[in-house]
Amino acid sequence: MAEALEGKAYACDVSDPAAIKRAFAQVREDLGDVDVLLYNAGSGQFGLFEEVPDEAFEKGWQINVRGLLQSTREVVDPMRKKGAGAIIVTGATASLRGKPFTAAFAQAKAAQRSLAQSFARQLGPEGIHVAVVIVDGMIGTDDQSGEEGSLRPSDIAETVYHLATQPKSAWTFETDVRPFKEDW
Amino acid sequence: MAEALEGKAYACDVSDPAAIKRAFAQVREDLGDVDVLLYNAGSGQFGLFEEVPDEAFEKGWQINVRGLLQSTREVVDPMRKKGAGAIIVTGATASLRGKPFTAAFAQAKAAQRSLAQSFARQLGPEGIHVAVVIVDGMIGTDDQSGEEGSLRPSDIAETVYHLATQPKSAWTFETDVRPFKEDW
Amino acid sequence: MAEALEGKAYACDVSDPAAIKRAFAQVREDLGDVDVLLYNAGSGQFGLFEEVPDEAFEKGWQINVRGLLQSTREVVDPMRKKGAGAIIVTGATASLRGKPFTAAFAQAKAAQRSLAQSFARQLGPEGIHVAVVIVDGMIGTDDQSGEEGSLRPSDIAETVYHLATQPKSAWTFETDVRPFKEDW
Amino acid sequence: MAEALEGKAYACDVSDPAAIKRAFAQVREDLGDVDVLLYNAGSGQFGLFEEVPDEAFEKGWQINVRGLLQSTREVVDPMRKKGAGAIIVTGATASLRGKPFTAAFAQAKAAQRSLAQSFARQLGPEGIHVAVVIVDGMIGTDDQSGEEGSLRPSDIAETVYHLATQPKSAWTFETDVRPFKEDW
Repeated sequence: MAEALEGKAYACDVSDPAAIKRAFAQVREDLGDVDVLLYNAGSGQFGLFEEVPDEAFEKGWQINVRGLLQSTREVVDPMRKKGAGAIIVTGATASLRGKPFTAAFAQAKAAQRSLAQSFARQLGPEGIHVAVVIVDGMIGTDDQSGEEGSLRPSDIAETVYHLATQPKSAWTFETDVRPFKEDW
Repeated sequence: MAEALEGKAYACDVSDPAAIKRAFAQVREDLGDVDVLLYNAGSGQFGLFEEVPDEAFEKGWQINVRGLLQSTREVVDPMRKKGAGAIIVTGATASLRGKPFTAAFAQAKAAQRSLAQSFARQLGPEGIHVAVVIVDGMIGTDDQSGEEGSLRPSDIAETVYHLATQPKSAWTFETDVRPFKEDW
Repeated sequence: MAEALEGKAYACDVSDPAAIKRAFAQVREDLGDVDVLLYNAGSGQFGLFEEVPDEAFEKGWQINVRGLLQSTREVVDPMRKKGAGAIIVTGATASLRGKPFTAAFAQAKAAQRSLAQSFARQLGPEGIHVAVVIVDGMIGTDDQSGEEGSLRPSDIAETVYHLATQPKSAWTFETDVRPFKEDW
Repeated sequence: MAEALEGKAYACDVSDPAAIKRAFAQVREDLGDVDVLLYNAGSGQFGLFEEVPDEAFEKGWQINVRGLLQSTREVVDPMRKKGAGAIIVTGATASLRGKPFTAAFAQAKAAQRSLAQSFARQLGPEGIHVAVVIVDGMIGTDDQSGEEGSLRPSDIAETVYHLATQPKSAWTFETDVRPFKEDW
């Protein structure tokens, strides 16, 4: 992955269904059908449930779950025609458990993981690989060495890239990544 | 549990925040503060994700997650003052995994379980017991013997009653119930 | 459970197959066939893996797994004839995860839980209820109030008793118990 | 991974502690210290528990658990000195659940996974990466295309290779691999 890669960015508020439609229409116009969707739009308000309004629980759900659902609807038909494609979702430790301060975030991530699992079981036999990466730890920057105990984004990307290119006889649904120093 | 018990029913659409507020206001007026909340409002549309509209995913979330959140907000303050209370949530196998036909339902139940876990971890030390019962199997009727392989509602109720009355030195967060004949 | 109950104790080293045979033979002679087996023989040496000899890993396995297997062999035939019976196993948080200091103990408890699950799935349809209670926290004494944050043995026993008497249309395989104050 | 690689094979019965000692002594003499240990020695007798003798349960434990423990003891000291190394364990669906026909195998695989988790948590901060690959499905041969629904060994190897070379800021503990057609 040392070669220079060119990318294009499209701004999109995934809590807004119309914005999702617009963004994918533009992507298709510029680049054609989507072969690999990395759904990395995680967000959530942290705090005890009494400190977080109902709206933040809902927004968390919209971003993590409805956005994934709608994005999948935008990309799945061409993938089905080709019998190929990958949808990789960024999860978090909160995908696996709820804690007091993550009440709003964790419910959304747990729902997202469940939805990805439904997708994986349905779409796998059609040749579309759906996977979840559970990121467990603080995400740092690529300037860091990794020795300080946070995740380097490009190191996470190595695993996402691996998943997106796995041969179909041995597909992963769920994998976790964490810093070697992490206490878990 | 053989003695006759009198109960009162209050109709409430738990996907409607105003209805939840009204129902609990009425309950408080008639019966006083809530000591035990059994959140048994499970619902969801079944089908492959392409057969189920976005709205049904959202409705599932409103019923299973937002309704639990709002109901908990209605009952938690008096429980905190007493340092006692129980909130028992009815889960399902879908709380633990997503399948193609349960996409909309499972995401909502997974989120609900996560929220209950956040509640349990926060409220336990305050003396409020939060638990989830994973119901794994078809629910039948009390007329049945149990031999045919479905769950009798009153047999589920035995376990819910047990949870609601557990001494606080040994509280359960999660328990599963299934017919003895169930293939799992 | 306030009435006085009489019990009989039989000493048995469950890591010794001959001792298990002798103990159950004596029980059968004195009391008849076993209707309910509570397998509460948990033990393990704690420490980092380099501090614990191979023999302690093996002993942990013998006590938690082989002992359960052999005890089940001793009681299962009469239970099958009656189409009724219960085998309840005491698990621990270590049944669900391995930590550095629990290496020897956790591997044995994880194996025990797995074995109980195999038993439950096979014997359930024959009318024999197999369950695991995950005890998560320090076990104190019945003299304590529960307010100090440890499990009172008789409070654990309430849940075990509940499991052993559940109606067969709604059997639990796994349930956790922990002090209300526990940080988990 | 298209280049030709030369390897050396050392026969070793991992249920025999002396054989493990001999094999690793020979490896060290021929090749030096071990940098990467792939513990792929899975075995187990299948059948209902009443069809499988106690000895097979024990043998399964020796192969999957004690063998991993003893092999780890053989390689860990030089890894610690270097602050680098990888121990990758081949798991199975049975690592996660016990079924009637897998009673003997599953208890051993569950214990193995737990032990690997204890290792991972202890050795990770020392720079040694411990991971488990849950292989879920039938393993075929590399002659197959993958379209028939079994795992190609070299496709599993891609994921094992990925794990063994992950940068330390983003290490995986557990990953699953299954054929795209698998019903799970």
